[in-house]
Amino acid sequence: MKVVKFGGSSLADGGQFKKVTDIILMDPERKIIVVSAPGKRYDGDTKTTDLLIQLADRVTEQGDEQDAFRAVMARFETIVTELKLPAEVLTDIEEHLARLIETYRDDAERLYDGLKASGENQNAKLMAAYLQQRGEKASYVSPDEAGMYVTDDPGNAQILPESYEAMKTLRDREGILVIPGFFGYSKTGHIVTFPRGGSDISGSIVAAGVEASEYENFTDVDSVYSVNPALVETPYEMKEVTYREMRELAYSGFSVFHDEALLPVVKKRVPIVVKNTNHPQAEGTRIMAERTPDDMPVLGIASDKGFVSINLTKYLMNREVGFGRHLLEIFEAEEVSFEHTPSGIDNMSVIIREHQLENGKEERIIQRIQSELKVEDVQIERNLALVMVVGEGMARTVGVASKAATALAEAAVNIKMINQGSSETSMMFGVDAAKADLAVQSLYYAFFEKQKTVQ
Amino acid sequence: MKVVKFGGSSLADGGQFKKVTDIILMDPERKIIVVSAPGKRYDGDTKTTDLLIQLADRVTEQGDEQDAFRAVMARFETIVTELKLPAEVLTDIEEHLARLIETYRDDAERLYDGLKASGENQNAKLMAAYLQQRGEKASYVSPDEAGMYVTDDPGNAQILPESYEAMKTLRDREGILVIPGFFGYSKTGHIVTFPRGGSDISGSIVAAGVEASEYENFTDVDSVYSVNPALVETPYEMKEVTYREMRELAYSGFSVFHDEALLPVVKKRVPIVVKNTNHPQAEGTRIMAERTPDDMPVLGIASDKGFVSINLTKYLMNREVGFGRHLLEIFEAEEVSFEHTPSGIDNMSVIIREHQLENGKEERIIQRIQSELKVEDVQIERNLALVMVVGEGMARTVGVASKAATALAEAAVNIKMINQGSSETSMMFGVDAAKADLAVQSLYYAFFEKQKTVQ
Repeated sequence: MKVVKFGGSSLADGGQFKKVTDIILMDPERKIIVVSAPGKRYDGDTKTTDLLIQLADRVTEQGDEQDAFRAVMARFETIVTELKLPAEVLTDIEEHLARLIETYRDDAERLYDGLKASGENQNAKLMAAYLQQRGEKASYVSPDEAGMYVTDDPGNAQILPESYEAMKTLRDREGILVIPGFFGYSKTGHIVTFPRGGSDISGSIVAAGVEASEYENFTDVDSVYSVNPALVETPYEMKEVTYREMRELAYSGFSVFHDEALLPVVKKRVPIVVKNTNHPQAEGTRIMAERTPDDMPVLGIASDKGFVSINLTKYLMNREVGFGRHLLEIFEAEEVSFEHTPSGIDNMSVIIREHQLENGKEERIIQRIQSELKVEDVQIERNLALVMVVGEGMARTVGVASKAATALAEAAVNIKMINQGSSETSMMFGVDAAKADLAVQSLYYAFFEKQKTVQ
Repeated sequence: MKVVKFGGSSLADGGQFKKVTDIILMDPERKIIVVSAPGKRYDGDTKTTDLLIQLADRVTEQGDEQDAFRAVMARFETIVTELKLPAEVLTDIEEHLARLIETYRDDAERLYDGLKASGENQNAKLMAAYLQQRGEKASYVSPDEAGMYVTDDPGNAQILPESYEAMKTLRDREGILVIPGFFGYSKTGHIVTFPRGGSDISGSIVAAGVEASEYENFTDVDSVYSVNPALVETPYEMKEVTYREMRELAYSGFSVFHDEALLPVVKKRVPIVVKNTNHPQAEGTRIMAERTPDDMPVLGIASDKGFVSINLTKYLMNREVGFGRHLLEIFEAEEVSFEHTPSGIDNMSVIIREHQLENGKEERIIQRIQSELKVEDVQIERNLALVMVVGEGMARTVGVASKAATALAEAAVNIKMINQGSSETSMMFGVDAAKADLAVQSLYYAFFEKQKTVQ
């Protein structure tokens, strides 16, 4: 049994619905379908979710909500018309939205979550209706019926552990099941949406819950690329990538698959296959526990900005048992998590995401470091990007650091920090944020241009 | 006023005493002399301190101590004879040693500390007597008279803060003062020796206490080399090196100057000048707060063995606020200090000196990591060497990492870990201990052979 998730662009209009249906029917293992809200049909189009947010904005501003309401309905209407679905489908959607607005008019948080979720929710109903019209035994399964129980934290739902057990029963249901992505239900019966990565998370949870043989994730690219395709001309297409590699890449700037979405399937070792709705015959990218060994030391290069480094100096620091613990405790007290802590003999840096330092946290942290650790110097270095070179093959290969550092030197990128842990699956370079793209390009050229010609 | 310390080889026999005296008299600023015990006169000779330890061994074993006693006396007798010092000097030494043995016969710790210290102690008396014979106003000053108060921790004395204030009065004393290195007195009146670096520590403390204009450290090399001279043919001689550079090098394997010996002068910014007793006209190496900028990014390359890395893996580790703090707390509870903590996304390593893991500490640490941090995997990697590339110029130079990593790759040395903090004064490479020398040699060749031809 496969769980198949279709992204927003895969379900943007009636034509895409037909493609998706063909894909579903091509493989009888494709039993559970998780859908996103209708996405962009063309450059400059607005996603349904954004239309729904605009509608929520109007309602909370107590402005004229009719135009915004009609804009949302127009998206669904186009699909219903294109697919020649019965008119009552559309009436249902309209009543559903109106009811949501009335119920939550004075509760902005719930209103936003409810409206945002309805893009996926209604789209799942349309998908189920269209499959039925095509003669398939198919049913819409709401997340609460599916067992998708989440914490009651609007916009940031976390799955509750009992959900996985509850979802097992989905295996026994007949026909094709269509489940909306992006949200679950709290124990108090409220709709609560997931953080970024929304529908990918839903699909991953369902795939883990039913212990699927595969979690297929259909989007609009043939594969996951080794590097941000906006930065190089013909990016290398990854055929296989391990969870670990994907996680390092996702963490450091790859937007393909958020790490929240990886976690559920990693635990159950369900392979993810990223495929293209518009080109389903392409092999796609398999994300799995172990991949076939090859001779490529590096599989991907990612970068992310928005980091700062808090650098401190104290003579004989490393003789003070408890210094590092005390330092990290100061960050912990402010609920700030750190990325890396590179160190010299008498200095140590704590690299963190800058957005964590709001509301006076920066001042309090610096002040405590000065007064409690009695450092000689503490400074904050901003505009830092972390560039990550990732590949399970790095551990087996001598010279990766050399090639990477040489590529950066030749591009005149100053390396501010380097960190390579014992796993040897990744190597981190801290560089000036303004040089991050150049760093990625030069590293890509060094590791991939030659690899490609060899194959 | 200069404080001048002479090492063991500089005072190994009467001939060396004469050289040392000439050096002292060459510069009227050389007012305070700190001396080591007589060292080796030739390859295969035994240092006086080792003879004293053998004597202590005999006494504690309750064996025949006469031969060992005579061997110690023979060393002093040779010097006394060569310098034509009065015979009572020798009688004094003999009585002193005999009294020490009688006093501490049943207290092994005190016996060892007392006998070990007497090498320096008696040598200082000889030096003072010889200076007097040469017509100088000179006096022996015992460490308690000098104000060298230390903790009562045999073999591991730590200076007490009030010592610095007490030593200030030495400035007002007339003539040349000769102080034995290597030990101080506890508040209970016992002789207590310093840890490794012994007499260098004493000299540094005195130099800081009297706020000397320079702390001259006479040994048997023309300068401090940029690399272990046993590893390369014509090692680069450092003219100037900052405290910070010296400390990084000393910490990572340079035996010239231990970091315990650096600390006192660093605080008072007294420059250290390392010079050669056998070639005093050589300029030597100045260790100071700031050095003259030059175009050499790297000033020294050091390595040290005996490290292990405790490597742990846990999915989404970096999301857990408090994970790093908790990990370091486990090491702290066992009083184990760490060197570096390189990390990936889901893994973290703690590099420590292996000798710290004795007495079940290793098992307890691993066990607590497993049970309290619920990691997926924890492993201990042994036989690790840390190779340190050091230079204040690195921060100003693009391409240092590239050159270093390329040198290691070309020598087929696999880099297990890399760490470069924000100070950019040093870069650490973790390599297999068996490859440490090769790593140092290849790095030296890369950074120095070309630098040398340019000059």
